[in-house]
Amino acid sequence: MLNNNVKQQLRDAVGERYFKDDKESLVTHSYDGTPMLQVLPDGIVYPKNTAEVSAVMKILNLHQIPLVSRGSGTNLCGGTVPVQGGIVMVMHRMNAILEVDLLNLTATVQPGIITKQFIEHIEGLGLFYPPDPSSMSISTIGGNIAECSGGLRGLKYGTTKDYVLGLEAVLASGEVIRTGGKLMKDVAGYDLTKLLVGSEGTLAVITEATLKLIPPPKYKKTMLAMFTDLYDAARTVSKIIENRIIPATLEFMDNPTIKVVDDYAKLGLPLDMAAILLIEQDGEPEMVERDIELISAICREENASQISVANNQEEALKLLTARRSAFTALARLRPTTILEDATVPRSKIADMVLEINRIAEKYNVQICTFGHAGDGNLHPTATTDARDTEEIHRVEEAFAEIFEAAIRLGGTITGEHGVGLVKAPYLEWKIGAAGIEVMKGIKQAFDPLNILNPGKMFAKETRRRVVLERG
Amino acid sequence: MLNNNVKQQLRDAVGERYFKDDKESLVTHSYDGTPMLQVLPDGIVYPKNTAEVSAVMKILNLHQIPLVSRGSGTNLCGGTVPVQGGIVMVMHRMNAILEVDLLNLTATVQPGIITKQFIEHIEGLGLFYPPDPSSMSISTIGGNIAECSGGLRGLKYGTTKDYVLGLEAVLASGEVIRTGGKLMKDVAGYDLTKLLVGSEGTLAVITEATLKLIPPPKYKKTMLAMFTDLYDAARTVSKIIENRIIPATLEFMDNPTIKVVDDYAKLGLPLDMAAILLIEQDGEPEMVERDIELISAICREENASQISVANNQEEALKLLTARRSAFTALARLRPTTILEDATVPRSKIADMVLEINRIAEKYNVQICTFGHAGDGNLHPTATTDARDTEEIHRVEEAFAEIFEAAIRLGGTITGEHGVGLVKAPYLEWKIGAAGIEVMKGIKQAFDPLNILNPGKMFAKETRRRVVLERG
Repeated sequence: MLNNNVKQQLRDAVGERYFKDDKESLVTHSYDGTPMLQVLPDGIVYPKNTAEVSAVMKILNLHQIPLVSRGSGTNLCGGTVPVQGGIVMVMHRMNAILEVDLLNLTATVQPGIITKQFIEHIEGLGLFYPPDPSSMSISTIGGNIAECSGGLRGLKYGTTKDYVLGLEAVLASGEVIRTGGKLMKDVAGYDLTKLLVGSEGTLAVITEATLKLIPPPKYKKTMLAMFTDLYDAARTVSKIIENRIIPATLEFMDNPTIKVVDDYAKLGLPLDMAAILLIEQDGEPEMVERDIELISAICREENASQISVANNQEEALKLLTARRSAFTALARLRPTTILEDATVPRSKIADMVLEINRIAEKYNVQICTFGHAGDGNLHPTATTDARDTEEIHRVEEAFAEIFEAAIRLGGTITGEHGVGLVKAPYLEWKIGAAGIEVMKGIKQAFDPLNILNPGKMFAKETRRRVVLERG
Repeated sequence: MLNNNVKQQLRDAVGERYFKDDKESLVTHSYDGTPMLQVLPDGIVYPKNTAEVSAVMKILNLHQIPLVSRGSGTNLCGGTVPVQGGIVMVMHRMNAILEVDLLNLTATVQPGIITKQFIEHIEGLGLFYPPDPSSMSISTIGGNIAECSGGLRGLKYGTTKDYVLGLEAVLASGEVIRTGGKLMKDVAGYDLTKLLVGSEGTLAVITEATLKLIPPPKYKKTMLAMFTDLYDAARTVSKIIENRIIPATLEFMDNPTIKVVDDYAKLGLPLDMAAILLIEQDGEPEMVERDIELISAICREENASQISVANNQEEALKLLTARRSAFTALARLRPTTILEDATVPRSKIADMVLEINRIAEKYNVQICTFGHAGDGNLHPTATTDARDTEEIHRVEEAFAEIFEAAIRLGGTITGEHGVGLVKAPYLEWKIGAAGIEVMKGIKQAFDPLNILNPGKMFAKETRRRVVLERG
């Protein structure tokens, strides 16, 4: 609850128009992209620059009021739900591209810029910013940094972390720090830049980022390989990497995903396939042609029943856009869609798909699986109904068992969506009790009063891990 | 000072033979690659596995005895000098390559393996591990991780940080944590992996690392471009990048460096050149040929007076080896060699070289400059004599001014050598007082008793920064 004094201070800090506490604004900022989670904040602020962010933080720090900073709130881990109330800070007004430095191949941006707008601007200058989360037409660079977003190009090009060279951030105290810079190398102290990337708004509010740009690939080629056996497709993924080919994109869709994506995007995909791989290679033309040929040969060896190479970039873009729409397409099936991102070493993709299907059957729930197979990052997606508490319970049990399977296969509970609220009870499974203690110490160093996105990442209680003995 | 009880506990932990406190062993481990720094430890331990490291840490933690973990001690920042005495832990017995996983393209190693041996092993399997610090024939992977070592291939391939996927580490308490894994994506909590890389032994003892391997480039070509004007050479560096060419290697040597390197390696280099650029490109043959041609054209435009392309890999290797020997070669000039690594945005290389030469003249000291020009990481190297305190004072003043210039140009005090003892008084110049406080909080979270490499990174007093007004 905010008293009138605090409200007035916040109005003074950001301007009358940019503090809101009407019911509609509060409701609008009470949820994010994650189903079944909603808590009302006490107020919303829309700062326009770092000085305003700092002024707001000083007020909140003084009164020990929680702050959730966010962009478009597309995250899928409940990361921006204001579970302890307080203030939601929306970064959309801070959306400038401050500089594109063509000598150093860097861009310096404010956090509120929409990722796709940024990418298009950069591509217009003949440069390339690879991280491309499926949410990119809505999500912001600041949100991508907070979650360390991945995307379809992660296999070859890495994720957001690999492109953040420097940050400006406002600490819980309101103090401003600057980390890194337009520097390809910097070992002056602990790497605060990489620590802030993926810290989910729990350590600081990011107010500016210097990003690495790279020369764009000269040429690309996209292909589909279709399989009547799911495990042939999964094995093909491993075999491509084993053959020392790193495609730009190597995506997997199972049969239910194929059906909904095709229905949504009208691609004329064969609906009787157990799995489809969507593969793109980019780079020098000779290399691309050679790799696509080698990949086709591997697909044939692994019993692909159909292989088709896109005839042109338009056709390729259609395929990629269709894959990006998988979540949206699946969301039409039933009222509630829960998308997870258990991740395993890429050699374990076949095992993991097998496990997911076994678990879905065991709990009698609908789980479709698609994802970034090339980097082992799968998105098992449950289509369910939040109103059916008994079914939701089965879905939750199924996901707990899926996380357990991922850990058992040498993987992790989240590859690119973050911990937030949803995965917090499972974090200890991945990093152990000593790891949790260290992370809590880091949180304490940045945010001693626990006002930055409180209640996230660290759960009150870790879920008991039931390790199954596999027969 | 260790009492007999502690000594006996340490002997019990690692075995009689692997605890030493004879004078010779203590002296041998009292210094590292940094000149003019020496402090005797109280004992040396040589653990053979993680359990022994943990057992030793538990003893030291109980008695609050400092620990410095190290590999070969080649670092150049005083990072492994045991300034507060205590125990030096040498990791050389933990030198196994535990696994090379050809399906996931990862290697899992113990920290004590010599980098070059590891690289050769990997290359023998047809794979590639890019980080190649000039010390690599002596230094260890564990040391490279502690310092986040760079090398000649950093421009295109990144540094050690970009290749560490997972770690096992022993905390100050003796507890063992595991971070990351054979995973291209993992956002389960704060990124402890990247935080530990470059943490200079102040946060934990690294006992195992999972490293990313990549397919090797198919082809390479190496060339030299020679300039009679230093600034033409520096400008060429910027212009290559500006033209969207990212060479694998883009190294700079000034005239005094050329002379000593040629004398050392007998290459027949023209000794009247102001600067030489050593450039290597790798990748697809067509791209390499095209890039080398474009780079040659840029060099000619910028008045290169001579350009020579290596005729074969043997010739190329000779050039690269010569460049790697620059430090050793310079060390023959005078009794004491102080090598620094101020780093700037790559567009500022010409300005930085100008500043270094102006500062050397101002203080009447000999500074030769070479380094990884492509990533803005220069190694201004003073040849001096530790016994001449007056001259050493001038050298120190000159370096302080060089660091100040680097910061002023948007750079950093260290690109790849670390902070250690030597740069600690300057760290605040780069990251500010609030940044130092956050870093100290992180240190506290990992090592509350301050027993892991104490006295490093954080100085008792920050050096006063004299910001020059440039006319």
